[in-house]
Amino acid sequence: MNQIQDALFADLYELTMAACYFENRMFAPATFSLYIRKYGPHRSYFISAGIDEVLDYLERFHFTADDLDYLQSTGLFSRDFLNYLENLRFTGELFAIPEGRLFFKDEPILEITAPIIEAQLIESFLINAVNLQVSIATKAARCVHAAGGRNLVDFSLRRTQGTDAGMKVARASFLAGFKATSNVLAGKQYSIPISGTMAHSFVLSFAEEIEAFRAFARTFPDRTVLLIDTYDTVSGAKKAAEVGREMRERGQTLKGVRLDSGDIAKLSREVRRILDEADLKEVVIFASGGFDEFGIEEALSRGGAIDAFGVGTKMGVSADAPYNDIAYKLVEYNGRPVLKLSTAKKTLVNQKQVFRETREGKMIGDTIGMRAEILPGKPLLECVMREGKRLAAPEPLARIRERFLAEFLTLPDSHKSIKNAENYPVRLSPMLEKAQSKTVREVKKRELGES
Amino acid sequence: MNQIQDALFADLYELTMAACYFENRMFAPATFSLYIRKYGPHRSYFISAGIDEVLDYLERFHFTADDLDYLQSTGLFSRDFLNYLENLRFTGELFAIPEGRLFFKDEPILEITAPIIEAQLIESFLINAVNLQVSIATKAARCVHAAGGRNLVDFSLRRTQGTDAGMKVARASFLAGFKATSNVLAGKQYSIPISGTMAHSFVLSFAEEIEAFRAFARTFPDRTVLLIDTYDTVSGAKKAAEVGREMRERGQTLKGVRLDSGDIAKLSREVRRILDEADLKEVVIFASGGFDEFGIEEALSRGGAIDAFGVGTKMGVSADAPYNDIAYKLVEYNGRPVLKLSTAKKTLVNQKQVFRETREGKMIGDTIGMRAEILPGKPLLECVMREGKRLAAPEPLARIRERFLAEFLTLPDSHKSIKNAENYPVRLSPMLEKAQSKTVREVKKRELGES
Repeated sequence: MNQIQDALFADLYELTMAACYFENRMFAPATFSLYIRKYGPHRSYFISAGIDEVLDYLERFHFTADDLDYLQSTGLFSRDFLNYLENLRFTGELFAIPEGRLFFKDEPILEITAPIIEAQLIESFLINAVNLQVSIATKAARCVHAAGGRNLVDFSLRRTQGTDAGMKVARASFLAGFKATSNVLAGKQYSIPISGTMAHSFVLSFAEEIEAFRAFARTFPDRTVLLIDTYDTVSGAKKAAEVGREMRERGQTLKGVRLDSGDIAKLSREVRRILDEADLKEVVIFASGGFDEFGIEEALSRGGAIDAFGVGTKMGVSADAPYNDIAYKLVEYNGRPVLKLSTAKKTLVNQKQVFRETREGKMIGDTIGMRAEILPGKPLLECVMREGKRLAAPEPLARIRERFLAEFLTLPDSHKSIKNAENYPVRLSPMLEKAQSKTVREVKKRELGES
Repeated sequence: MNQIQDALFADLYELTMAACYFENRMFAPATFSLYIRKYGPHRSYFISAGIDEVLDYLERFHFTADDLDYLQSTGLFSRDFLNYLENLRFTGELFAIPEGRLFFKDEPILEITAPIIEAQLIESFLINAVNLQVSIATKAARCVHAAGGRNLVDFSLRRTQGTDAGMKVARASFLAGFKATSNVLAGKQYSIPISGTMAHSFVLSFAEEIEAFRAFARTFPDRTVLLIDTYDTVSGAKKAAEVGREMRERGQTLKGVRLDSGDIAKLSREVRRILDEADLKEVVIFASGGFDEFGIEEALSRGGAIDAFGVGTKMGVSADAPYNDIAYKLVEYNGRPVLKLSTAKKTLVNQKQVFRETREGKMIGDTIGMRAEILPGKPLLECVMREGKRLAAPEPLARIRERFLAEFLTLPDSHKSIKNAENYPVRLSPMLEKAQSKTVREVKKRELGES
């Protein structure tokens, strides 16, 4: 594993605030909500992901001797405070929407309650972990939806933003319905099927293209997918057909060809015709090169004869929405509801719960209420950690994936469109609305002198 | 350190190609070039970064016993090949443009020459490492340029794409001229100054805003920067001025205030007036909240009274250009120049060198030539690794930063503008042009039957 487990993976202000809480003996419980304030372009839902990583981090949270030496060297912190940090562990409680479930803007994907210093120090890591996996799972699900049942493979490793993203993108895209990843380490680490055959360099390293094809077919007779666009896609397809017939004579089967450049919708039809005319109807056409949900939808709508897609960079960095307006906000301290005043950025006070209603197997709307309320629908936030300990063992990724695929079927198509999707209805319970207004009034009166 | 050192951090096709090279006894040297094919929006230069990480990876490159067990479990590879991998180390040569130097599209930032299996297996990691740091250093340099000498602090940790990016963004932005980072672990790991004071949650956790300000000033009398927009920026500024006067009576100095929302250009002038009227002219105004080079330029052009910026998410994910069209292409195998035919995507054959000419201390143009040529200007690609060993110890980050800042001064302003910058002139040497055309003709004749 390559997980950061270091409590110094934090913004400095978490530590300076903690030092000040410490000096003022502020150890009361605080509740923070993690939620996304708005949808990125064309987005209409999010998928919960990254929770397992959060639990893992919280269970191991601590400062090493080395960390404390470094903090001392900065000259910012008292000896008392550093001693306090030495023994600090995370002892709080965590409610979360299980990985693989859908959630919507303003809904807390997790709520943490812990002594304020603990809840504060973990902020940077929590946002970082959840933000990336939610972004990618959501982008990947949009690709899966656009592909209408065709297989998708994660090809993004080389252009993800760093190595951690390379791993998490493989995980999150598989969670959201991808079939496989090219990332071998992710295959090993997360038990994801791995996929891949050859690059242009392979073809170039042989004196002739067809010799490269033949060599690969000899080494991997059961899994040969030939990359046919190194010099010219149509001439490559003809050579692939020749090798396909040679394989058949040896009792083998050419599995597929891959197109990686040019007008793939158009070229794929021509390649299909060449393969069909060579009586190689079983050979699948694999397309790659700059695809995401928009490219997939366009290629298919233009009649591309494509059986599967390799989806790379644009999914792996969520190119059209490379970040979320995600926030980790204090909503209650020592039993007192709190909020920041801002017209543009709403924070919902108090410990909360989200209730999801379905009718005839379809999701019809969510209500955000107070944690203690009992409202119609299924409560989504589940207690997953108490006193700093997980309440259940980590779930296999395959099970999370099944949960997502089952729930995604229940989301009406009008909310899934790649463009111009309808907003899914999310309302606040009357009790939460009231608590919210009351807090706003009190704060305005106290801080701004409004009556 | 949190570095991935695992040889399985690779696309599966690197391994299937390697297996086929192995079976065909293809162990001849191959040269791969790493370069960027085009500029992202508004970009007009790149900064070399990530080379140290590459050298580190190559020196440690190996498959663990665990890796080999996993590869065996896939059923894809022969026992012979797995035995070969067990002993495989990187034994090649690496030419690179030193970190901190400017480079331009089509110029190789690095060229690797090694037995083809080695050069192939490292592809995914190399692209990943270089791509991220180059992207971020370039985006950060644009922010530094826009800020016209004002201090910038990296605030992006929470919303970078994963933990590795969190670390590398701190490194790359400091390299490109940022003054500090909020990321404490990066401060420790890379000796970058760290910066940060308080979040909105801190203000909310006290019964009144002014009490939060006073508490912080008591704990950190030497480094108090008050966040004043939790409830209302103007009323927050008045309370900050009150605390600033109290501090002065105690012989202390309020260092600054931070604005994080609203129309910051306008609010900052009002806040400046409030502070000046309270005779607190020394208190600096720090702005944060969604800034990148475009926001910085706009806020300053609108007369914002801003002394320093916290630059977060948009820089940390390079939001307007979250990936580069970066490629790692085979250019020579066993002494034979090779290239992929494609009108849109040019690969330059052969081992190369980049020559940079300056006149009166200003950069005037680069020439990409053959490695063996001697052309006017300073050669940029330096041999940094031979037989798999670094030729010099890692450079301190501060020295790389100085190299960048010095070179950036020599790039004429016309190539630095945030928008509509002029393209920097990069030409090919006649010898390289000729080798290129010759290879294209030969390939077309051989593969497409053109004469």
